[in-house]
Amino acid sequence: MIQKLTMPWEDRPEGSKEVVWRYSQNPIIPRNLLPTSNSIFNSAVVCFGDRYAGVFRCDDTNRRMRLHVGFSDDAVSWKINEEPLKFTCDDAEIGEWVYGYDPRVCWIEDRYYVTWCNGYHGPTIGVAYTFDFVTFHQLENAFLPFNRNGVLFPKKINGNFAMLSRPSDNGHTPFGDIFYSESPDLEYWGRHRHVMSPAPFEQSAWQCTKIGAGPIPIETPEGWLLIYHGVLASCNGFVYSFGSALLDLDQPWKVKYRSGPYLLSPQKDYECMGDVPNVTFPCAALHDDETGRIAIYYGCADTVTGLAFGYIPEIVEFTKKTSIV
Amino acid sequence: MIQKLTMPWEDRPEGSKEVVWRYSQNPIIPRNLLPTSNSIFNSAVVCFGDRYAGVFRCDDTNRRMRLHVGFSDDAVSWKINEEPLKFTCDDAEIGEWVYGYDPRVCWIEDRYYVTWCNGYHGPTIGVAYTFDFVTFHQLENAFLPFNRNGVLFPKKINGNFAMLSRPSDNGHTPFGDIFYSESPDLEYWGRHRHVMSPAPFEQSAWQCTKIGAGPIPIETPEGWLLIYHGVLASCNGFVYSFGSALLDLDQPWKVKYRSGPYLLSPQKDYECMGDVPNVTFPCAALHDDETGRIAIYYGCADTVTGLAFGYIPEIVEFTKKTSIV
Amino acid sequence: MIQKLTMPWEDRPEGSKEVVWRYSQNPIIPRNLLPTSNSIFNSAVVCFGDRYAGVFRCDDTNRRMRLHVGFSDDAVSWKINEEPLKFTCDDAEIGEWVYGYDPRVCWIEDRYYVTWCNGYHGPTIGVAYTFDFVTFHQLENAFLPFNRNGVLFPKKINGNFAMLSRPSDNGHTPFGDIFYSESPDLEYWGRHRHVMSPAPFEQSAWQCTKIGAGPIPIETPEGWLLIYHGVLASCNGFVYSFGSALLDLDQPWKVKYRSGPYLLSPQKDYECMGDVPNVTFPCAALHDDETGRIAIYYGCADTVTGLAFGYIPEIVEFTKKTSIV
Amino acid sequence: MIQKLTMPWEDRPEGSKEVVWRYSQNPIIPRNLLPTSNSIFNSAVVCFGDRYAGVFRCDDTNRRMRLHVGFSDDAVSWKINEEPLKFTCDDAEIGEWVYGYDPRVCWIEDRYYVTWCNGYHGPTIGVAYTFDFVTFHQLENAFLPFNRNGVLFPKKINGNFAMLSRPSDNGHTPFGDIFYSESPDLEYWGRHRHVMSPAPFEQSAWQCTKIGAGPIPIETPEGWLLIYHGVLASCNGFVYSFGSALLDLDQPWKVKYRSGPYLLSPQKDYECMGDVPNVTFPCAALHDDETGRIAIYYGCADTVTGLAFGYIPEIVEFTKKTSIV
Amino acid sequence: MIQKLTMPWEDRPEGSKEVVWRYSQNPIIPRNLLPTSNSIFNSAVVCFGDRYAGVFRCDDTNRRMRLHVGFSDDAVSWKINEEPLKFTCDDAEIGEWVYGYDPRVCWIEDRYYVTWCNGYHGPTIGVAYTFDFVTFHQLENAFLPFNRNGVLFPKKINGNFAMLSRPSDNGHTPFGDIFYSESPDLEYWGRHRHVMSPAPFEQSAWQCTKIGAGPIPIETPEGWLLIYHGVLASCNGFVYSFGSALLDLDQPWKVKYRSGPYLLSPQKDYECMGDVPNVTFPCAALHDDETGRIAIYYGCADTVTGLAFGYIPEIVEFTKKTSIV
Amino acid sequence: MIQKLTMPWEDRPEGSKEVVWRYSQNPIIPRNLLPTSNSIFNSAVVCFGDRYAGVFRCDDTNRRMRLHVGFSDDAVSWKINEEPLKFTCDDAEIGEWVYGYDPRVCWIEDRYYVTWCNGYHGPTIGVAYTFDFVTFHQLENAFLPFNRNGVLFPKKINGNFAMLSRPSDNGHTPFGDIFYSESPDLEYWGRHRHVMSPAPFEQSAWQCTKIGAGPIPIETPEGWLLIYHGVLASCNGFVYSFGSALLDLDQPWKVKYRSGPYLLSPQKDYECMGDVPNVTFPCAALHDDETGRIAIYYGCADTVTGLAFGYIPEIVEFTKKTSIV
Repeated sequence: MIQKLTMPWEDRPEGSKEVVWRYSQNPIIPRNLLPTSNSIFNSAVVCFGDRYAGVFRCDDTNRRMRLHVGFSDDAVSWKINEEPLKFTCDDAEIGEWVYGYDPRVCWIEDRYYVTWCNGYHGPTIGVAYTFDFVTFHQLENAFLPFNRNGVLFPKKINGNFAMLSRPSDNGHTPFGDIFYSESPDLEYWGRHRHVMSPAPFEQSAWQCTKIGAGPIPIETPEGWLLIYHGVLASCNGFVYSFGSALLDLDQPWKVKYRSGPYLLSPQKDYECMGDVPNVTFPCAALHDDETGRIAIYYGCADTVTGLAFGYIPEIVEFTKKTSIV
Repeated sequence: MIQKLTMPWEDRPEGSKEVVWRYSQNPIIPRNLLPTSNSIFNSAVVCFGDRYAGVFRCDDTNRRMRLHVGFSDDAVSWKINEEPLKFTCDDAEIGEWVYGYDPRVCWIEDRYYVTWCNGYHGPTIGVAYTFDFVTFHQLENAFLPFNRNGVLFPKKINGNFAMLSRPSDNGHTPFGDIFYSESPDLEYWGRHRHVMSPAPFEQSAWQCTKIGAGPIPIETPEGWLLIYHGVLASCNGFVYSFGSALLDLDQPWKVKYRSGPYLLSPQKDYECMGDVPNVTFPCAALHDDETGRIAIYYGCADTVTGLAFGYIPEIVEFTKKTSIV
Repeated sequence: MIQKLTMPWEDRPEGSKEVVWRYSQNPIIPRNLLPTSNSIFNSAVVCFGDRYAGVFRCDDTNRRMRLHVGFSDDAVSWKINEEPLKFTCDDAEIGEWVYGYDPRVCWIEDRYYVTWCNGYHGPTIGVAYTFDFVTFHQLENAFLPFNRNGVLFPKKINGNFAMLSRPSDNGHTPFGDIFYSESPDLEYWGRHRHVMSPAPFEQSAWQCTKIGAGPIPIETPEGWLLIYHGVLASCNGFVYSFGSALLDLDQPWKVKYRSGPYLLSPQKDYECMGDVPNVTFPCAALHDDETGRIAIYYGCADTVTGLAFGYIPEIVEFTKKTSIV
Repeated sequence: MIQKLTMPWEDRPEGSKEVVWRYSQNPIIPRNLLPTSNSIFNSAVVCFGDRYAGVFRCDDTNRRMRLHVGFSDDAVSWKINEEPLKFTCDDAEIGEWVYGYDPRVCWIEDRYYVTWCNGYHGPTIGVAYTFDFVTFHQLENAFLPFNRNGVLFPKKINGNFAMLSRPSDNGHTPFGDIFYSESPDLEYWGRHRHVMSPAPFEQSAWQCTKIGAGPIPIETPEGWLLIYHGVLASCNGFVYSFGSALLDLDQPWKVKYRSGPYLLSPQKDYECMGDVPNVTFPCAALHDDETGRIAIYYGCADTVTGLAFGYIPEIVEFTKKTSIV
Repeated sequence: MIQKLTMPWEDRPEGSKEVVWRYSQNPIIPRNLLPTSNSIFNSAVVCFGDRYAGVFRCDDTNRRMRLHVGFSDDAVSWKINEEPLKFTCDDAEIGEWVYGYDPRVCWIEDRYYVTWCNGYHGPTIGVAYTFDFVTFHQLENAFLPFNRNGVLFPKKINGNFAMLSRPSDNGHTPFGDIFYSESPDLEYWGRHRHVMSPAPFEQSAWQCTKIGAGPIPIETPEGWLLIYHGVLASCNGFVYSFGSALLDLDQPWKVKYRSGPYLLSPQKDYECMGDVPNVTFPCAALHDDETGRIAIYYGCADTVTGLAFGYIPEIVEFTKKTSIV
Repeated sequence: MIQKLTMPWEDRPEGSKEVVWRYSQNPIIPRNLLPTSNSIFNSAVVCFGDRYAGVFRCDDTNRRMRLHVGFSDDAVSWKINEEPLKFTCDDAEIGEWVYGYDPRVCWIEDRYYVTWCNGYHGPTIGVAYTFDFVTFHQLENAFLPFNRNGVLFPKKINGNFAMLSRPSDNGHTPFGDIFYSESPDLEYWGRHRHVMSPAPFEQSAWQCTKIGAGPIPIETPEGWLLIYHGVLASCNGFVYSFGSALLDLDQPWKVKYRSGPYLLSPQKDYECMGDVPNVTFPCAALHDDETGRIAIYYGCADTVTGLAFGYIPEIVEFTKKTSIV
């Protein structure tokens, strides 16, 4: 993905020592941007020609989980299609829409791939591709249910497509590890490898209940930079924060470093209050290789969309320095 | 109930397309209006002569659930008795107060009837009547425990008193359908009929865990307009929203239409934060046949009382247009 | 119910001091008596002219819960209709069969009444009557769901029909008290009164989780003799035993005496092993006023039917002597 | 698999109308056949040259779940290797033994394939092949965790290997549907299709909690005959019975017929009592095309191995006649 | 503890009738006062020479629970050591740090004692002493796990050290009574006595799930004034409020009075929103015998530290007047 | 304890390779030995002069847990007092009987000490002593609730009394480690040390949920021989087996060896069927130093008492050879 566009950006607040800091204009998308939207939050944003495109989780006021396509010139101000995204699919049973949420978008070789949590007799990972963000071709679901947080790598690994995912159960899943899988053709998947488990709570409690991959991993000299969410089960429910890990470039199921502290946790009103309190959930990031800047899009309280900034080299350094591996 | 009084009202905010909108001065009753009140929220309000009267759930600072009587000239500014409502009852065992909450008040023929969730070896539906909001005569409990959200119809159906209710269990009940029952005399109840179940979450998730009747049903040409709450179980607890249904005029256990979207869900600070976060719970409504205006009283976060407005014809239309029946 | 017939009987085994003792030929009905029966257990047996009749819970090999009618000359050897009992009902919605189990049969005035746990959007109490054990007229369900173990009194109390029942939830219900209700017409029910709760486990652990009425109460000079089951929740599931209580003749919701010890608990192979291990569940009893003999029919491990014997005066005495009231 | 050998057989007991009947000498393998075995039960048995071979689940007295190879001349009397089965594997991480249980063995084209529930950061489906029951080559795990009851079809479907499986969670899984997946190479799997869910309990309660494929499906003119287990959750734990279904020959994820009644449920002492009471769990079957005879091997109470007999045409007929599809 | 210093203080707000009122500048310590702190809340504050010292629960951004020492001139503005508190201990196994939280500090005779919830194969009560808030000597854990909220009395009772504590389980513990124990030497503990249980919810619901001692008890003519937290389990999680009790001076396990209403419950944004919503948790208090003033330090939403004020005589009076004992 | 008496004994069955084998006459005590006993199972047996004495858990037919004293000449045939054991106690609050179960009896220096699970606002460890099995003096409870399986060492360790115990919760406790504590005087306890946790289920599943000490530890040259129970949570409830460990003689909280396999697990009818199926629970052992013989008393299905035999040197050898430490 070539970064020719101006990324969203805001300098680190004076006096702050945060590795990742929030955008002062958060949230960037109001929950009711669409006439029928209850909330717009977990959002997958990419460069698309001379502007930006994205696939957004827009729950409607039935609180049905839907995906919508959107476009933007500056990646901050978004225009989202009122009509939900409709996939075309060769197989009627697979193409039948039940529900879909938490999309990711990944450019690989010649097109954009969308993955999302897709309802097919339980949650699993839906896969589709588009060239134009108008027509989306849905492929086979990657895995059997129950799975969530399927995230593709932006290039083939060992000649195969590669995906991270988080096997789950059919409810609010009080457990969850990240796994890695490969596919020669995006139709059949295998070579499943365990990547990482929740951390012991004495070591890193924000990620001690379950974890899941966030934005598309970013290639760095130190490995694939993975930003991922972690969950703590308090007596008043789950708390979703996010941190970072570095995965081996050739064998991405091997974790080289993993941050003990979180990069960001729910602390602002719009993160602590909403349809699901205490959630910060990253799904996408834009970055600029030259400056090292990264802009992370994250869902806030499962209600609105937030933006946070940082420098990739600093995040890499932070990950190594605080590593619990 | 004859509407001679000026109803509370505020026009729809400019630019809003909401079918039901909040009062800009919400909450209308502070939690500590009484010296000993922890919270005042689920409130049953009616026209009473040339002013308004109501029965209010006022939890005290022991957090005991109590009912209090209140009066108002404008139905917005309330004066609530400091002493809890005391019922007179011919039977000592039935009349013994354990706890009472979530009252509804309904005018039928010649008097006001109060129903509430009454503690008698578990929650059940208490029934009483008053002519003057001073003396309240308690009758037999309508049903065996466990039951909540007992709501009378404002006139007899097929010659009988008629009530909606929501059979429950003895805890935080993760299920719940609305049923209909009849009584010739408010002493013996029968002819129980199932009205509606929670909706499939793929169809209308805000009402997929349990549902319960709200204000006294309103007769319209399209059927009885029922405003009811629905509950979604998120990983961080229950979320209470409310929507609308139209029940057959003669056989009110038959649902003609039922809104897929909610009319209102917890989105404001005072709805998302409080003793029970994320609760909007309607218990009463005033309406004006001439203008079609309706003012809905709803509990906010089980802490304070909110007010929302709409037009009955628009709500009827909305219910039909978005119906999931 | 006039006892002209020879009751089943077997003397107390030599050396035994048991108040209630098992029939040496237990179980009396094999689980597969019918070609399609998985189990035949909770059984309601009465005198019927010059022989005996009964309504039996016969789960089929789909493990659907069904009621079947049966007849016997000696009340031990039973011939059960292969076809399930079909009720006639004036109201199609009420008459629609979903499931039915745990029947009781009670003679009142001029006919036999059947009550059972009836599936109507959850378990509730079905009511029907028959004159001939061929045609059964189904009436309105007595209560809203969720309810089980509805047991009629054999004569009117205060001019009303009277029923004991056990309000429940929609699952395996880890709680449960016995309540009393009245009806002028078997259509509308009210005047609900609490009868008794599970006992504190330090006092009588076999009945510390939930309790439910068993056979039709028997009138004695000391009060209504109620044989009821009680449940203990061990770390390996529920254990169902049964004991006895004496209820006030005029106000049967007042418990005069209640046995601390059980009369019988699961101890035999056919009680400890089967579809639901460790269940002894009484549903019916035959008794002879002259001799004081009683024959108790009880389900064994939810699989087969057992028979136990005793003398009513001894049971009354036992209840009084060991009472925990 | 060519049936040249004499199958185990015993005629239907006189007077019995059972479609499937137990072997009178059950259990055929004592729990402590091996010096260190706690139990030997879920067993995968096939013809192997001029005798029989099998892979057996033998839990040791640590109660570690292990697989052992065994041989027999008559398929009734078994000699089981004392040493657990060791797989060879090209990948050390995949080949590392954690636990393995509930094996199935399937002859496809030129060799025997073993599938089993394999511990790899949770239960998933292990796959291996052998020519000689001495050396077993372990391949990639078929799926991500959590999965159980992976059962191969005995020939390729649409040019692909095909497998049934039951996605699960990481505990005692109170849910579970059967799915179908394909693989061109036994390394990558996809084209996942839903086959069937648990039945509504009003319709067929023995299979209302979860279901899972049993022996290798058998090709019949009416479709693939699938014998599968189903689970009912009683208040005293799970009950495992088994029934039958017929799957479309070309699109095996389409269920043509499915038996409402079970074929066999836990009723004998050795099925109701043991390490896990009330379990009958089929994992393998031998059959003879000429006579239509089938011998089903099933685990009893997770403790010992039982054998049951029937005629395939009768089972097919039974499945069609009682179908709940 | 001699009170020579100026206590923090703010007069009761005009018009307020609250027995205990919040400091208008709450919270007094921001969550990120330390570079690595996620939150600073449950705080133990004492007079220390001519200034104040304290032990603070500072969770770091790994969300590891740590104790830090801090100092202040005015007891409002705190300087907290960046390095966590390290204990010296004669026994390596006991002295090994796992986690520690919710400290209390108590001056007895000649030194300060710290007690806290200490991780040793589950939570138990750690005990240490210091003379200077620089060196802390760790003693044996007072009890076996699982225990929390260990609070020492400020002088010996019957010649023994005395401690209140709350036996727990290893999770979020949905139960909990306060007990009393004695020790001759702070090494061996015994003479355990039950002090009080949660209140019946009909009587005082804010304390109906579990309770635990808060600050060091204060000696008054009416008994030991104990400020303690109580927990209510709503459908959206636990709510932590606090109230007061008076314990017998000589036999402090005997409760003389116990407030039915709470003194303070979560009502402010910083109490209702944060890492654990709806928590007000008192751990320390400063008081002045002459004026009767008390300043209570309490954790807010497990995130920040709040301060509340009152007059001891008024609290004593309130406790007596509203007592539910 | 000097073994002058003839121990119960039966040689190992021919052909058996079991380290511990059952008595062929099991169970040795029928459940209804007493007129009011429902079950007699967890039993503490010691040499007492020229015969044997014991304290027995005898649940009555209220299913109240009671302790009874018994005597025997051969330690197989027991005469048990009909009256429950009554303790004398200087402190009325401690001496008040609530419930008591699972006793152990230990001779230390000059008298017999009884420990048991004692109800005092939850289960904890009661302590008493007797010289004559007639008068029992009850001391302070050793610990705060919640605790079970308190087992004394037969001599002082480091000059202190020493006890193993298993901290618990207030229900069926799905966790549990063994801890060690010391007391100078049996009044105050401290120096708590962790001994061992449940084993990983991949390593030794029978003890993967919780563990607890059984009979009084036996001093051997290889360490204290501890026979302890372990629990597995199957989908149909808990399974209680028992194994062995060797603890350091001077620092008994250090485990030198611990058996991977069980010594005995529930396999016989009387162990698999009863009030709590699948329980074998050892509470006492007699042994003879000269011959190395040991006779282990264990509760069977929480219903009857069983006896098993072995040789201490063989058990020691087995523990070392199969150790999972």
